[in-house]
Amino acid sequence: MAAEIADQPRAWRALLAERSSVAEVGAAVAARRPRFVQFVARGTSGHAALYAKYLVEIRLGLPCGLASPSTVTVYDGVPSGTDVLCIGVSQSGGSPDLVATLDAARRAGALTVAVTNDPTSPLAAAAEFQVDVHAGPERSVAATKTYTAEMLALYLLVAAWEGTDSAAADVLPDLGDRVLGDSAPGELAQRYRFAQRLIATGRGYSYATAREAALKLMETSYVTAQGFSAADLMHGPLATIDAQVPVLAVLPAGRGGEVMAPVLRSLAERGADVVGVGDPERLTGLAGGVALPEGASEELSPLLEIVPLQRLALQLALDRGEDPDTPRGLRKVTETL
Amino acid sequence: MAAEIADQPRAWRALLAERSSVAEVGAAVAARRPRFVQFVARGTSGHAALYAKYLVEIRLGLPCGLASPSTVTVYDGVPSGTDVLCIGVSQSGGSPDLVATLDAARRAGALTVAVTNDPTSPLAAAAEFQVDVHAGPERSVAATKTYTAEMLALYLLVAAWEGTDSAAADVLPDLGDRVLGDSAPGELAQRYRFAQRLIATGRGYSYATAREAALKLMETSYVTAQGFSAADLMHGPLATIDAQVPVLAVLPAGRGGEVMAPVLRSLAERGADVVGVGDPERLTGLAGGVALPEGASEELSPLLEIVPLQRLALQLALDRGEDPDTPRGLRKVTETL
Repeated sequence: MAAEIADQPRAWRALLAERSSVAEVGAAVAARRPRFVQFVARGTSGHAALYAKYLVEIRLGLPCGLASPSTVTVYDGVPSGTDVLCIGVSQSGGSPDLVATLDAARRAGALTVAVTNDPTSPLAAAAEFQVDVHAGPERSVAATKTYTAEMLALYLLVAAWEGTDSAAADVLPDLGDRVLGDSAPGELAQRYRFAQRLIATGRGYSYATAREAALKLMETSYVTAQGFSAADLMHGPLATIDAQVPVLAVLPAGRGGEVMAPVLRSLAERGADVVGVGDPERLTGLAGGVALPEGASEELSPLLEIVPLQRLALQLALDRGEDPDTPRGLRKVTETL
Repeated sequence: MAAEIADQPRAWRALLAERSSVAEVGAAVAARRPRFVQFVARGTSGHAALYAKYLVEIRLGLPCGLASPSTVTVYDGVPSGTDVLCIGVSQSGGSPDLVATLDAARRAGALTVAVTNDPTSPLAAAAEFQVDVHAGPERSVAATKTYTAEMLALYLLVAAWEGTDSAAADVLPDLGDRVLGDSAPGELAQRYRFAQRLIATGRGYSYATAREAALKLMETSYVTAQGFSAADLMHGPLATIDAQVPVLAVLPAGRGGEVMAPVLRSLAERGADVVGVGDPERLTGLAGGVALPEGASEELSPLLEIVPLQRLALQLALDRGEDPDTPRGLRKVTETL
């Protein structure tokens, strides 16, 4: 897991070097003019899809949803595929429910794209178009580099579909190297050494960061970690927060960070211990913070935000005597039906 | 909260008596032939929307998503409304982000329906069509009767749109009375008296039950409760489960309960303490169970499943010396932007 976290800037460079192949798929998708987008994904890849849902809605102006695989696999439902683009996202491309859902969409007339780390996988075979995220082999059960590679691939796909250039992404590998040099995650792991519960929160593009950070902490350190959109947090879960439940707030530069201000005020009223990850200017007054380097657009910020949180999950697992590469009860390829 | 939980069968009878007004909206929607459906909702109403997403996908065969309000309110995104039906679901109809999202959808050409407990609310005013869930005033911060009334209203709406009768729902009030007479929730509250964490899980139509049960426990008893689709649970969160984390499994008769079998096996391997709610035949071998009466179709089972779990949340809060009607940090109408 440590090696795969550290491999992310290299993996991003590899994918950026192959951007023309992603752009070809983006152009082919644009030519077919889909009008509704459905993502098919679970777990970490589901969080990459959640990130991309905002890109599709905001940049392409298309309504977008996350498919419920059990509609197909449990209830034999067949949603119409007319004018639909169905994008499967999966590291392994191997989970039978995702393959079945993408396959059903294709048979129902949907345009289908598989975004995977294995272009020979069943999911890639089921789709009309394939995007290889070029992350290289990932062996740790807790996915890290494939998460950010999937997000980058989806960003490149949307940019090509929209017909804009994706040069904004070129800053990412160097910024990633800088993020990897920060010692803050190790200090945070000390702080959370005995925490049993944790809440991560963010909004918009950074909502996915909160969800994925919570999943990493659950998988590797067995913390009961919850990831909430900052707005959903206010609709109930806020009541669980007191000074005993640590909160990780994702605070990027830009509007997704700006709208966190009232949420931070509510958390302060509840006496919460809030650590921020993001724009250095937003971290003042909090219990702690991980400052991210400037230079990435808000849309691309989630690729950097997750890196210190992956490192936190790794270090916390090691400090607790767990093996983050082989979490109890999990396998690398989860086969749900 | 106790009175509102107990009021559910009466509220369902009231709504069933008004089904023709819901059917009129359903017929009007059918005449417009929307091809994609987006729900706009948060919190408890978001769980009613999650339930209805399965109805739309399975019974109507239409792709369906849950809108991300920040697309509109934070990033000024305007997803296309052509051929889209946008359904806002909210007890109060008052949260500004939901109103803004529905309003943006309508201006973008979407057909809009508001499902609320207040036909004079801003959300109802923003929509072309209104469905009143007829639950009567709900004062407790933790929503209970409006949750099941929203699900019933959405069920009736989908049935009318599909052109099928909704007679299957007529059994619900009497079954609800029977569920309310069961003493199992009080015993469960004893069992969980000192639990700080809990996981609720279900699949398909019953996924919403797991999510809503977790929210009720968070809101009233401040338990760190997580609700997972049983498939998502296998993609990571399973690692957090050991004998110290209680699990509530929703096990309806029908296929959504059937596909829980492998999940229950994985939970047993992890030594989990699993209590089931649902079909009496599925409860054998578990640490405990709440048997639901037979007679409801699987699609309608979620309206009954949640009732003992609402009662559990209420009783646990009382046992812990909390006031379930006014949870700390929350207000009845949550205004997120």
